[in-house]
Amino acid sequence: MTQVIVVNGGSSSGKSGIIRCLQAVLPDPWLALGTDMLVEAMPASMQASDGGIEFAPDGEVIVGPEFRTLEAAWIEGVTSMVRAGARVIVDEVFLGGAYSQQRWQRALGELRVLWVGVRCDAAVAAGREIARGDRTIGMAASQAEAAHRGVVYDLEVDTTHAESMECARAIAAHVK
Amino acid sequence: MTQVIVVNGGSSSGKSGIIRCLQAVLPDPWLALGTDMLVEAMPASMQASDGGIEFAPDGEVIVGPEFRTLEAAWIEGVTSMVRAGARVIVDEVFLGGAYSQQRWQRALGELRVLWVGVRCDAAVAAGREIARGDRTIGMAASQAEAAHRGVVYDLEVDTTHAESMECARAIAAHVK
Amino acid sequence: MTQVIVVNGGSSSGKSGIIRCLQAVLPDPWLALGTDMLVEAMPASMQASDGGIEFAPDGEVIVGPEFRTLEAAWIEGVTSMVRAGARVIVDEVFLGGAYSQQRWQRALGELRVLWVGVRCDAAVAAGREIARGDRTIGMAASQAEAAHRGVVYDLEVDTTHAESMECARAIAAHVK
Amino acid sequence: MTQVIVVNGGSSSGKSGIIRCLQAVLPDPWLALGTDMLVEAMPASMQASDGGIEFAPDGEVIVGPEFRTLEAAWIEGVTSMVRAGARVIVDEVFLGGAYSQQRWQRALGELRVLWVGVRCDAAVAAGREIARGDRTIGMAASQAEAAHRGVVYDLEVDTTHAESMECARAIAAHVK
Repeated sequence: MTQVIVVNGGSSSGKSGIIRCLQAVLPDPWLALGTDMLVEAMPASMQASDGGIEFAPDGEVIVGPEFRTLEAAWIEGVTSMVRAGARVIVDEVFLGGAYSQQRWQRALGELRVLWVGVRCDAAVAAGREIARGDRTIGMAASQAEAAHRGVVYDLEVDTTHAESMECARAIAAHVK
Repeated sequence: MTQVIVVNGGSSSGKSGIIRCLQAVLPDPWLALGTDMLVEAMPASMQASDGGIEFAPDGEVIVGPEFRTLEAAWIEGVTSMVRAGARVIVDEVFLGGAYSQQRWQRALGELRVLWVGVRCDAAVAAGREIARGDRTIGMAASQAEAAHRGVVYDLEVDTTHAESMECARAIAAHVK
Repeated sequence: MTQVIVVNGGSSSGKSGIIRCLQAVLPDPWLALGTDMLVEAMPASMQASDGGIEFAPDGEVIVGPEFRTLEAAWIEGVTSMVRAGARVIVDEVFLGGAYSQQRWQRALGELRVLWVGVRCDAAVAAGREIARGDRTIGMAASQAEAAHRGVVYDLEVDTTHAESMECARAIAAHVK
Repeated sequence: MTQVIVVNGGSSSGKSGIIRCLQAVLPDPWLALGTDMLVEAMPASMQASDGGIEFAPDGEVIVGPEFRTLEAAWIEGVTSMVRAGARVIVDEVFLGGAYSQQRWQRALGELRVLWVGVRCDAAVAAGREIARGDRTIGMAASQAEAAHRGVVYDLEVDTTHAESMECARAIAAHVK
């Protein structure tokens, strides 16, 4: 039985929409937890760097050591929720590519994980970033490739030409 | 010279995304004003009917006489902004089809209007409504056809297979 | 009969809360329209200056010529809504003090206006700005005095020690 | 050294504002995690009951068995984050009073917890609920007393006459 679904993809690739569809489509209740939530939980001051997060003008995201420390504890905590019986969908951007995946792999250990990559053509994602109107312009383009570097998946979906709901159904078919 | 762009389409058809792209693509600054803004400006009590707005469980939206009165004044006001020199994109759902269009036509009078219809396959719009996660489920399906009944356009775009940015560029090409 | 209530005060002085209470307390439906709405209606690019709006690191807000042009049309439009029969509460920050008030006075002309000032001790407003967590830090302090410079009111309320609802009731007592 | 601060109080009592001030005032970075986040992480369908959450018209909140199951896993997970080194502020509404507290006590075990109660006069909280404009009316009044029934605190603050920042400083003085 699948216990965790880790969904990784760049900003504006469509991850969150797919995850909401997944929650609607899967028969059991799954919790959706993600990096956005972790960032929101941090002190406002950390969202302007000095150990926290910095959004460069070109959309690059730089995280500092204090972010990494809290993130490590967050990963431990999410893992414990799964061990305690919650089925969890993790909404992630692997800014560090393969290295980011390894941190989750180490924490999740023996749990049954479905690794999902959400791809989207960089130019299309950049257009959607403008259409959303609530993101720093440039993040979509800067993360479209980088987030997948060296990452290994059980399943990849591509939102360039597919709807969130279609992608969600494809993922749900792999959940046992 | 086009002075107003009226963009009409059902809920979750992608109007707002197109409009944000239009604002990014058009050389001059255009104001985007819409029904959502009008609703937000009303007293909270009116958003639970008794003369105001009611969201039926199946997603149907019913508006009462007090809503109609404030809406008429809103239409007058938006028209005045255009006469005063602002270029305005109106983000609308013509719940009353042709009748709703006539109200705007009468107010806008001699101004140069570009009428744009945003279509989206009802099933696709319903999927996007789930993906967004912030709308009453059922609105997309119930408005997909109804919002266009009897309405006449200068231009129609369809978001079923086209990106917001593509649609915005198509519209921008008609703005003189 | 009062047709417009113009509520002016600095950021985090409590204007919006008072206005929502006013809408709940007044027997007729009043529309609440404000600067925040105008800013939201502008192209995203204008919210990073070059003619638009700039938020200095110390919380100062600088608006450029393109902002002023659209704002003038907005003021005309809001005035027309009132002439067309809507009762309107205007939620404003007079960044230019008396000069900002004159622009509204000239537009509103013969209409019956209730001018309300919302004051709040600068240190208290700065604390509330931190508690809200969604504003640029520094705006509250920088606007607390400046927004009232040379402005003339029919009524002033002070949220330093009074609740939004109390202030709303005091204002409502002046609405005829 | 305090490892967890559990802040409990009814809706619109001012907990979240106090917590943002606490994060600003405490020298180390603390994560703020709360029930609102858990609810947001659940499938949309659970937010309309059938095992999930129901908001009665009078503001009462009823949670079902599926909510309780996910909540138990959430509590485990938050506890693990603390064990892994994150300092955490828990933003809670003990709908079940003493019983809700016991669930957290059992999970947190030997960790050093500061239990904080946030009180607010029911009528004042009800007024603030209207001023906020984004909550189901009635929750503030229905939870003002109930959330504290049988709960034991290290420290209580009352926002009826005190600012969020003042309360935050009082709490911070108890954090070792």
